[in-house]
Amino acid sequence: MYRSRLGNDLSDITLDYVSSMDDDSQIVLYDIVGSQAHALMLYRQKIISKNDVKKILSALESLKKEEFDSFSSSSGAEDIHELIESLVIKKAGMASGGKMHTARSRNDQVALDIRMKIRDDTLVVCNCLLDTIESLISVAKNHQKTIMPLYTHLQQAQAGLFSHYLLAHADAMFRDFERIFGMFPRINQSPLGAGPVGGTSIPIDRQGTAGMLGFDGIVENSIDATSTRDFVAEYVAMISILMTNLSKISEDFIIWSTSEFSFIELSDEFTSPSSVMPQKKNPDILELTRGKTAEIIGNLTLILSTVKGLATGYSRDLQHIKSSIWSTSKTSIDALLIFKSMLLTLKVNEKQMRKTATSSNLIALDIAERLVREGIPFRITHKIAGVLTQLAYESKKPISRLTQSDIKKSVASTGVSAETVASIISSTTVVSSLKERRSAGSAGYDEQKRMILERTAKINDLRTKVTKQENQIKLSIEKLARQIQELIQ
Amino acid sequence: MYRSRLGNDLSDITLDYVSSMDDDSQIVLYDIVGSQAHALMLYRQKIISKNDVKKILSALESLKKEEFDSFSSSSGAEDIHELIESLVIKKAGMASGGKMHTARSRNDQVALDIRMKIRDDTLVVCNCLLDTIESLISVAKNHQKTIMPLYTHLQQAQAGLFSHYLLAHADAMFRDFERIFGMFPRINQSPLGAGPVGGTSIPIDRQGTAGMLGFDGIVENSIDATSTRDFVAEYVAMISILMTNLSKISEDFIIWSTSEFSFIELSDEFTSPSSVMPQKKNPDILELTRGKTAEIIGNLTLILSTVKGLATGYSRDLQHIKSSIWSTSKTSIDALLIFKSMLLTLKVNEKQMRKTATSSNLIALDIAERLVREGIPFRITHKIAGVLTQLAYESKKPISRLTQSDIKKSVASTGVSAETVASIISSTTVVSSLKERRSAGSAGYDEQKRMILERTAKINDLRTKVTKQENQIKLSIEKLARQIQELIQ
Amino acid sequence: MYRSRLGNDLSDITLDYVSSMDDDSQIVLYDIVGSQAHALMLYRQKIISKNDVKKILSALESLKKEEFDSFSSSSGAEDIHELIESLVIKKAGMASGGKMHTARSRNDQVALDIRMKIRDDTLVVCNCLLDTIESLISVAKNHQKTIMPLYTHLQQAQAGLFSHYLLAHADAMFRDFERIFGMFPRINQSPLGAGPVGGTSIPIDRQGTAGMLGFDGIVENSIDATSTRDFVAEYVAMISILMTNLSKISEDFIIWSTSEFSFIELSDEFTSPSSVMPQKKNPDILELTRGKTAEIIGNLTLILSTVKGLATGYSRDLQHIKSSIWSTSKTSIDALLIFKSMLLTLKVNEKQMRKTATSSNLIALDIAERLVREGIPFRITHKIAGVLTQLAYESKKPISRLTQSDIKKSVASTGVSAETVASIISSTTVVSSLKERRSAGSAGYDEQKRMILERTAKINDLRTKVTKQENQIKLSIEKLARQIQELIQ
Amino acid sequence: MYRSRLGNDLSDITLDYVSSMDDDSQIVLYDIVGSQAHALMLYRQKIISKNDVKKILSALESLKKEEFDSFSSSSGAEDIHELIESLVIKKAGMASGGKMHTARSRNDQVALDIRMKIRDDTLVVCNCLLDTIESLISVAKNHQKTIMPLYTHLQQAQAGLFSHYLLAHADAMFRDFERIFGMFPRINQSPLGAGPVGGTSIPIDRQGTAGMLGFDGIVENSIDATSTRDFVAEYVAMISILMTNLSKISEDFIIWSTSEFSFIELSDEFTSPSSVMPQKKNPDILELTRGKTAEIIGNLTLILSTVKGLATGYSRDLQHIKSSIWSTSKTSIDALLIFKSMLLTLKVNEKQMRKTATSSNLIALDIAERLVREGIPFRITHKIAGVLTQLAYESKKPISRLTQSDIKKSVASTGVSAETVASIISSTTVVSSLKERRSAGSAGYDEQKRMILERTAKINDLRTKVTKQENQIKLSIEKLARQIQELIQ
Repeated sequence: MYRSRLGNDLSDITLDYVSSMDDDSQIVLYDIVGSQAHALMLYRQKIISKNDVKKILSALESLKKEEFDSFSSSSGAEDIHELIESLVIKKAGMASGGKMHTARSRNDQVALDIRMKIRDDTLVVCNCLLDTIESLISVAKNHQKTIMPLYTHLQQAQAGLFSHYLLAHADAMFRDFERIFGMFPRINQSPLGAGPVGGTSIPIDRQGTAGMLGFDGIVENSIDATSTRDFVAEYVAMISILMTNLSKISEDFIIWSTSEFSFIELSDEFTSPSSVMPQKKNPDILELTRGKTAEIIGNLTLILSTVKGLATGYSRDLQHIKSSIWSTSKTSIDALLIFKSMLLTLKVNEKQMRKTATSSNLIALDIAERLVREGIPFRITHKIAGVLTQLAYESKKPISRLTQSDIKKSVASTGVSAETVASIISSTTVVSSLKERRSAGSAGYDEQKRMILERTAKINDLRTKVTKQENQIKLSIEKLARQIQELIQ
Repeated sequence: MYRSRLGNDLSDITLDYVSSMDDDSQIVLYDIVGSQAHALMLYRQKIISKNDVKKILSALESLKKEEFDSFSSSSGAEDIHELIESLVIKKAGMASGGKMHTARSRNDQVALDIRMKIRDDTLVVCNCLLDTIESLISVAKNHQKTIMPLYTHLQQAQAGLFSHYLLAHADAMFRDFERIFGMFPRINQSPLGAGPVGGTSIPIDRQGTAGMLGFDGIVENSIDATSTRDFVAEYVAMISILMTNLSKISEDFIIWSTSEFSFIELSDEFTSPSSVMPQKKNPDILELTRGKTAEIIGNLTLILSTVKGLATGYSRDLQHIKSSIWSTSKTSIDALLIFKSMLLTLKVNEKQMRKTATSSNLIALDIAERLVREGIPFRITHKIAGVLTQLAYESKKPISRLTQSDIKKSVASTGVSAETVASIISSTTVVSSLKERRSAGSAGYDEQKRMILERTAKINDLRTKVTKQENQIKLSIEKLARQIQELIQ
Repeated sequence: MYRSRLGNDLSDITLDYVSSMDDDSQIVLYDIVGSQAHALMLYRQKIISKNDVKKILSALESLKKEEFDSFSSSSGAEDIHELIESLVIKKAGMASGGKMHTARSRNDQVALDIRMKIRDDTLVVCNCLLDTIESLISVAKNHQKTIMPLYTHLQQAQAGLFSHYLLAHADAMFRDFERIFGMFPRINQSPLGAGPVGGTSIPIDRQGTAGMLGFDGIVENSIDATSTRDFVAEYVAMISILMTNLSKISEDFIIWSTSEFSFIELSDEFTSPSSVMPQKKNPDILELTRGKTAEIIGNLTLILSTVKGLATGYSRDLQHIKSSIWSTSKTSIDALLIFKSMLLTLKVNEKQMRKTATSSNLIALDIAERLVREGIPFRITHKIAGVLTQLAYESKKPISRLTQSDIKKSVASTGVSAETVASIISSTTVVSSLKERRSAGSAGYDEQKRMILERTAKINDLRTKVTKQENQIKLSIEKLARQIQELIQ
Repeated sequence: MYRSRLGNDLSDITLDYVSSMDDDSQIVLYDIVGSQAHALMLYRQKIISKNDVKKILSALESLKKEEFDSFSSSSGAEDIHELIESLVIKKAGMASGGKMHTARSRNDQVALDIRMKIRDDTLVVCNCLLDTIESLISVAKNHQKTIMPLYTHLQQAQAGLFSHYLLAHADAMFRDFERIFGMFPRINQSPLGAGPVGGTSIPIDRQGTAGMLGFDGIVENSIDATSTRDFVAEYVAMISILMTNLSKISEDFIIWSTSEFSFIELSDEFTSPSSVMPQKKNPDILELTRGKTAEIIGNLTLILSTVKGLATGYSRDLQHIKSSIWSTSKTSIDALLIFKSMLLTLKVNEKQMRKTATSSNLIALDIAERLVREGIPFRITHKIAGVLTQLAYESKKPISRLTQSDIKKSVASTGVSAETVASIISSTTVVSSLKERRSAGSAGYDEQKRMILERTAKINDLRTKVTKQENQIKLSIEKLARQIQELIQ
């Protein structure tokens, strides 16, 4: 395959090596709008004339409608910034178009485009996260009485409720939301006008362009504005953590989808059938999410190991982290969208979950806790419960069927009366235990309802916040568009 | 070396493999204080008697003073939690000591200890960061007139000021501060009382213990509280980014310390001498910081790749991320402390910086910008400046010494008058340029003063915030200590 | 904890930051032996006198017996090389001891020590690998008839044999062996005598010292010899791959240890009991191996991201990769030792494996293949088998109990006769299938025996090779020791 | 951008999420050829008829000529294997085409395709490596007298020759070659015929297909053959190390391209001009190579962290590592091709190199070594040279211009005579030192010639080996093609 490559003209290989045109297709529109804001500011600051700004804005406006895929490859341009300027000069003439790049450089321009891209992606991720959390809670609502075993070390540990499991992950995703939405103010700062590295003597208004583009403020120091990619590292790190959370649920669901567990069944659209065994459903979608999590971790390694030893000031190494931003966004957004649908179409095998939970002497710890409430030290009640479980295990009976003599053995040399133990055993079931489990955030019945209510309210609050941020940007961009229309008409 | 190992008793190797005792020495005190809060709560909730709580608290109090190093290795205990409980039972007797672990498990306990450790480390890092930023600003104050070349691609790009360089990194570290301090509310949540995974039927007060220990609230859902390590991943990710910022300055300083650049000289304590060439100072401290950045990135990879595919519920894999937390904290705190001192003792070779900046035709861009202010399109002024620089380069003269005929060449077919260009050349120097560079955050003289003032004020604001957080924890812990003293005396 | 640190004398913090003394304890002996070889060569080349060499060798010999832990911390020396030279000068006097470092530098010395350490570790890993493979094969021998389901996507796919599973991993580990043993010739090259970076004018004999120390040759180019750490990256990369193989088996065994699978039971020493449920055995050792795999991957990230952007010539960043070598060796060796014992004490629940395999219609694919042998296209036989399995699944019967009418449904519009299908069904069992499964390397009975025999022979071959390498080094080192004794007595 | 995505039909998003069609375009041809070999074997083993094999082979042959890009996206097929089989059935009819997948599965098929792809890429990389080494040596030939300073810690350390520097990297790349070529036998093993996981009862000939496709043998165990991706991890790890070597030279060259160093100048095609300073040449190509190294390290993290915790048996997570193989190959091959050309067009500023080397008292160590040859202990000669350099540094004179009184100071309390020192100083120059530097692999003149000769011979040897491997594959594939033509004509 590469053999032919070896015969290629070296200059083609080199252009391909240095070119970022493929990646730049993701930021064409941001680049155009950013250039429009800059041109408008230059006019307002009386740096260019009304005639100049009209020509520049018209040219840029017409570029919005063109397909960049078609001419970008043949243009020979190394990147989108160069290409757009040359097209503007072609359309508007050198006398006006040649003023477009006054008081800016590719270095602040690419930083601007990336920030506009990430801030949009961030808000999409936030919305998808809230949708996913909502779906977790909506499924949890239906499973507040669905008994299941809870695991530690993948070993059955306590009886619990499926809603409780789902809410655990809703809470983790609320933190993902906080982390991702919390970095928005650091992303939404404009580097525009910082120049190549040291700023400019031309009397530009950086706050002005920031405002037109819906930014919260500017990345002030011009060296910092053009060099830093810390916001990229932060973004990809936060998405990595989000993905590990999706990966964890995927791992659970893959195991629960085995014939041996049989707790859940994915709907057909999210599995791949095996050609011979139609009842077999391979949980491909979950495996892919797990695999794509590794992809994002790889992206993070790429970014950190790129920026680690760079000297200050833009370096071309940074070009290469752009494509890892795009894949990070796409993968996480798709993963969330699909995860939500997978969840809402999930078939839960309540019978099997309950059967597994009730047949496994998981009430042992509950018996120990009831004994504690009789004033017996925990370590002793633990020991008693331990002996009971051991005896049940050996005799292949549930604890509730143990004999009087078994119970006597369990209290030997503890000073606890066999009657107390027997009485507690006879009144303890998985259901009674889940009724009594009332510690804050526990797996008991009562906590489920409360937690669901609170989290539902929380989602609404957060939606309002995201919408507010979205509107700030949207209104600014719309206002800018109106002002441009007024000027060029 | 390992040969002998092969002869070892396998059980020793196994104990060493599973043991976390080495790592646990970092959290002994947190474990004891956490257990005290839990015991006090059990008493207040009437779950254990006054006699019980007194004995437990006394035993724990006495353990605070013991050296754990000495007996931990010989104890055979796998972890600190097991060891402490056994010592309490030994001191307080089973009847009382056996109640210490009522309504909790190692799973919520280890999560508690890690959170107490990270929240302390976080605040230390925040303080160190503010100290470091302060030192950057204090050095910047002295170098507001120190002219230097600014680089992109490690090539000289524009003239600038050393203060501007330092302030760029101060701003980056302000963001590091925001990121690290911003995650504090997510870290400072108590998992205590979540039990092994599903909570408890014993009527504990989780909010109570959270308050006693200075937490902002609780990690509510018990599955989430015991399983999640997202706060660890976030912590190490944020420290990674901080380290890449230190690494970037280190890279600059290593290059500036070469004989070829000769911009700075590290003080002797931060370099290693070469045995033959006493004037040679190897910048080891900077290289180590760069190397230690890779260590933290490695830690982050370890953590993300550990949690990526784990099923929900505590797994022993998680034990292994503890030591990467400790090394992350220690490395970053030491790096900041040393960085600050290195900075404050740095010898800046102002003469060499200025010489390099002024002898390199770096005013070319300034000339172009002055022409822009005459109404000439940027692309054309760029071209003129380009020709001027090329001619200067070829004739090995500075631009200011170019002949009239050179200047004529530069304006050929641009319609710009040679007189305008000549006049601008004759009045443009690095100093005049830096006076005119007034865009927000630029390298010009005026911006330095303003930026320094604003940032100095910002540091004070942030110090107040950190102190407030520190006090909240400190006062809670002190109050708890007083209450314990009252009970046990 | 770090609060106190802030009060520390900065010079202590700095010494701790730059010191490699902790890491160097791993290479003390290598350093001494390396220095002895160098001194002996200097004498043979007539660069130092007999008197000098006797004094130097005696001093070094006496250092072998000392405990370095005790005086290293108090010495204030930054590294072991400096410490040892100063001790030799103290013992042998400056006139002789001052000649020890003739024609060498710390840069070639540390490279030498690391290579001696890694070559030893490599051979230990190789031996442990062979032991582990041997244990896999020895367990496989006992399970050539142990029927189990084979999985893809964690879904049951085909019936197989436990021996086949074990042999799959033996083969993976043979490749691990090849990879690790295969890099030995690249590691076992001496950098000694390369000097700081450019070699020396003193007439040393680099091949001579290489031979004395059991090396295969020298890393010739002096820049390369002192700068490169590619052999470290290769070593840790190869160990990473080995660990992912152990991690994969661990993942299988963790899942098979669940109550739901119940295929295997680890012996008590490799599990941690839960305090309440004595029958519960948490497979901690397997989880730790999985977790430690992430540690090694983190080490690899550290190393690659350290060397990635370094300029040529020794840099202090490299110091930091030493500790990741040590932990990589220790972890992998311990993991292999423990894994082997875990395997040999594993309880295999053959009954449960067989029950799961035989009750799951896993013979569907075998039926399809039998139909293929009747000349029917695979896609059609697949379809028939699919319908059969679907019908069996729906009617909750095994395929063998399907009715004639069911079978007719399965062949509808395929042109295949129901009789053929019925006859094949009635003669197909898991056992008959495993008898017929004869493709090379398949899960059938016959293949097991053959594969076990071949692999047993292969182990013996490989042992011989390792022993040969070990002996080459051992004999060289012993010869060197004799020559030293002769000189100094 | 993603906003619109949210409105998309979920099933499109899902198909995009699970599809590997983009990645599969890299392996279409391998898949077709692999299927042809399998079909031919089925015929030879009398499993399918002559008529069947002719139809299948014809259909596959015709697919070779089609453009897969065009119909793959619209096909709705999830992967290339499914698509190709459906096209064959369409062309050849179910009766024959339906037999194509007899005794194989997608699991062994995808493993086959990846192995065929990597083995081809491996040989291309090996050829490119030899070309690059050759170019290093060819440039070294021209620079055997080009004096330059050698650096440690980026500080000038010793005088050396540019050829010596280039040969150091040639040697590193020889090891890269050994590593990459050395894994060929592990890659070049056929997994074909292993089935989904457990093999087949159909009497196939796995050795037969392996031979037809030019493999050295088979990955025997069917579980291993379908599950393992260790060869991918090994491949990407080895390429990572190769890239760190290219990255190191890039780092050197970036620093040497600064105005401050001015040692080298890249040819125009490998730099990007700055628009204002035409003499400024940004070394973008070197920065990109450094950045792309991080990309490959990220790929390796992705792969290791994917395979780390997978259960045995094919999982869909593995799909995702395919694209990181492709990018690893493409990036490294392009990097080598460009690196070679960059090297061959490099302008070396010999004057500046020599000036820097000779004006820096780098002869100090050489003076010390000459004193050693007078019998003075190295530590004492070191001290003397140190004082000399210090005095030279302070008086801003070269060592050769130091006064008699200076020289007396340097020998104070050493017992060495000032005359000896003075005489050595007067006869020591950089050139004389490089003449005397004769230790094996040192920077001296004599060693250059010898090393160049030996390495030139080595390249030829290695070329022969690569060609042999290439021919083995090529001849097998050609023979297969002939046999197919004979059958289908």
